[in-house]
Amino acid sequence: MTLDKNWYTEKWQGQGAAISLRITDKIHDEQTDYQRIEIYETESFGRLMTLDGLVMVTDRDNFIYHEMMTHPAVLTHPSPKKVLIIGGGDCGALKEVLKHKNIIQVDQVELDEGVTRVAEKYFPALCASNNDARARLIFDDGIKWIQNSKTASYDLIIIDSTDPVGPAAGLFEHEFYRACYTALTKDGILMAQSESPLFHASLIKSMRQDMNSAGFQTLATLLFPQCTYPSGWWSATLASKSRLNKPRACDVETLYYSSGIHASAQVLPPFLERKLK
Amino acid sequence: MTLDKNWYTEKWQGQGAAISLRITDKIHDEQTDYQRIEIYETESFGRLMTLDGLVMVTDRDNFIYHEMMTHPAVLTHPSPKKVLIIGGGDCGALKEVLKHKNIIQVDQVELDEGVTRVAEKYFPALCASNNDARARLIFDDGIKWIQNSKTASYDLIIIDSTDPVGPAAGLFEHEFYRACYTALTKDGILMAQSESPLFHASLIKSMRQDMNSAGFQTLATLLFPQCTYPSGWWSATLASKSRLNKPRACDVETLYYSSGIHASAQVLPPFLERKLK
Repeated sequence: MTLDKNWYTEKWQGQGAAISLRITDKIHDEQTDYQRIEIYETESFGRLMTLDGLVMVTDRDNFIYHEMMTHPAVLTHPSPKKVLIIGGGDCGALKEVLKHKNIIQVDQVELDEGVTRVAEKYFPALCASNNDARARLIFDDGIKWIQNSKTASYDLIIIDSTDPVGPAAGLFEHEFYRACYTALTKDGILMAQSESPLFHASLIKSMRQDMNSAGFQTLATLLFPQCTYPSGWWSATLASKSRLNKPRACDVETLYYSSGIHASAQVLPPFLERKLK
Repeated sequence: MTLDKNWYTEKWQGQGAAISLRITDKIHDEQTDYQRIEIYETESFGRLMTLDGLVMVTDRDNFIYHEMMTHPAVLTHPSPKKVLIIGGGDCGALKEVLKHKNIIQVDQVELDEGVTRVAEKYFPALCASNNDARARLIFDDGIKWIQNSKTASYDLIIIDSTDPVGPAAGLFEHEFYRACYTALTKDGILMAQSESPLFHASLIKSMRQDMNSAGFQTLATLLFPQCTYPSGWWSATLASKSRLNKPRACDVETLYYSSGIHASAQVLPPFLERKLK
């Protein structure tokens, strides 16, 4: 069976596998200073945003990723007030963080303003909180931002980045984690997307080692399904400067996240535990 | 981006989405009385078996499915001795069940002998226990087999079937579950593959309703990643004639299953809980 030109296809790099979504229209195509942004209408996944040909967001399944990138960190911290999101241009993570009333400021540092402007137009649900008075949308280099941040200026740092190639590569390295450590307050938590447990276990392992050597005291890698990301299975790794507390109860509305899901997501299957050792 | 003829593609029926695996060779192509069986060598997933063009098994990721279809049922039952597998022609579930020393007999009733013969040749690891003295390989209609089974003849029934279309459709219906109920012993457990939580929530719901109305007292739907199945996220639904016990400890070697994974897999995200209500 072959797919005609009405299908968008992403080859999963180095994995000899690909996912395709049937498209009904292409509604945006833009080359920014940083990347090519395309928006499609799909048959069954709502709208799709790709960056340089890779799936970033679909209407249908982004809720899992955005909830798992945010609520576990927000609810593990005893009392988070100031949050930094690096990347996150589609604003889905921002929206989830701002559901929590105790958060007083979220700085979002996205390299490419184009991503956010396109998201505002084509993914209004994700951008519903962009005008929240607590949100500061900054378009700048996240690595420089962290280096220039004052010591202990954030309670949470969320790395909602693209894959560890090109401009995002530096977001997966020890020096960057060290700078995050310094920019975090005493009980500060770093949460970073950490790719596929099936495809990228060695990356998860090196991220964890780098977070540890940057000074973080406790780590937790959380697993969750993500249909349109490579392998359909994804992870986020949480690093805390202090001991991991039992998460506070979730008092905001969610589709995927719950306290039970939070605990479950941290249980790693034996094959992965062995690979991360 | 388009895929050339070196890619095998499965369109996920009704979902406007597809998965593709890069193939390096096609090593078997056979039309049996029931279906077309094809075997490919892939670039990164080892061997791939398809039935009527749908992915059944790859070397790389079948361990998750086969372990989750078997160990939760075996270890939840207080003392399982006789097991029936319906379908399961690739013999991966059979191999997992036979890891447990307390099992004294496994009848596997697969409609299409061709599937098992091909699996024996191309998936020898899955068929490693086919010659175990406790295994009986029967090639027959699973629905008739259940109807003709004596009352209380099995402790566990595992439905390792293809999708609910064609010959497998009857394996997803109330009458069939009722016959399973009768064929099961007092604490008997039925375990059935129940498709994708993202794509097929309404099927899971109707299966659960049918199992309930067939007399099963307690149900548990378990979720797990399965890269090459539709949406990359899959489920198995367990139905017990009695109260669900805490699973016994797992004393066999596994790659995905553990007691912790067993408990975690039963935690349903809020969106799914609502849909199953």
